[in-house]
Amino acid sequence: MQKGFTIWFTGLSGSGKSTVSKLVAKKIREEYQRNVEVLDGDVVRQNLSKGLGFSKEDRDTNILRIAFVAMLLTRNGVVAITAAISPYRDIRQKARESIGNFIEVHVNCPLEICEQRDVKGLYKKARAGQIKLFTGIDDPYEAPDEPEVVIYTDRESPEDSANKIINKIKELGYFS
Amino acid sequence: MQKGFTIWFTGLSGSGKSTVSKLVAKKIREEYQRNVEVLDGDVVRQNLSKGLGFSKEDRDTNILRIAFVAMLLTRNGVVAITAAISPYRDIRQKARESIGNFIEVHVNCPLEICEQRDVKGLYKKARAGQIKLFTGIDDPYEAPDEPEVVIYTDRESPEDSANKIINKIKELGYFS
Repeated sequence: MQKGFTIWFTGLSGSGKSTVSKLVAKKIREEYQRNVEVLDGDVVRQNLSKGLGFSKEDRDTNILRIAFVAMLLTRNGVVAITAAISPYRDIRQKARESIGNFIEVHVNCPLEICEQRDVKGLYKKARAGQIKLFTGIDDPYEAPDEPEVVIYTDRESPEDSANKIINKIKELGYFS
Repeated sequence: MQKGFTIWFTGLSGSGKSTVSKLVAKKIREEYQRNVEVLDGDVVRQNLSKGLGFSKEDRDTNILRIAFVAMLLTRNGVVAITAAISPYRDIRQKARESIGNFIEVHVNCPLEICEQRDVKGLYKKARAGQIKLFTGIDDPYEAPDEPEVVIYTDRESPEDSANKIINKIKELGYFS
């Protein structure tokens, strides 16, 4: 049976998690004929965490649910890709421990750039005080200390970032 | 790639869902070399639905979360087995629609027998009024109209029940 693993993206809103995660999913499906499931932050909130807010406690609960589902997929040979902000280091560490085959990808993009892009218009709302506890504005983002991969989406193309990740997965032996 | 599907057990507390579901999982793993995940009601409540109670609304939310995870596993080629009471017909129907490859197993066992067994001591508590909204006592159980399989755990051995289910899966072509 094939070895499951989880690619865990973490980064600010607007850093490029969705774009790169979808591209990585596409490449793994096409080039390695693997089953891949992208657990998008918004979709998971809708289906598993309706009613939860953005306090530290509620964010932690949401992330632990994503981790639980990623663990189930991973131990059944699926490639799980998570693309939630997941701002807190301690909870990402718990996810790593419960999942096992874990590739943490730090989507590193300066706050100024994310805020300039503001694809969903959320930074504007956060600056105006219409959204509270927004990561990077009035809630902390804790960058990973030792992620398996760092991608710099302000100066790499999505294609380059995706290839860096695929190469690391190969190097770690998860495709064998 | 292999075809995923979900075996959805439904039945009263103490009817034998866990026993038979575990046996079916074991047989499918051993005889068909498939990845199988059993989504036990209690484990899912702990990991995805902490804080939810047993009102119709909370039960529905819990079952829809189980269905969401079973759907993710199923579409990635895994065999998902759910073993929650899932007492309401309309929500099981929603689960069926969202999952697609769906085998509903009615674990048919008279209430009297379940209550005599009372493995977890829950019926006693329900009769004493210490647990409210207990299925079969003061909350309804809606039996399926057209389940793919009915097993009678008061007069079949777990082995016989498991074989009935496996035969139906074969007949439906999910192992090909």
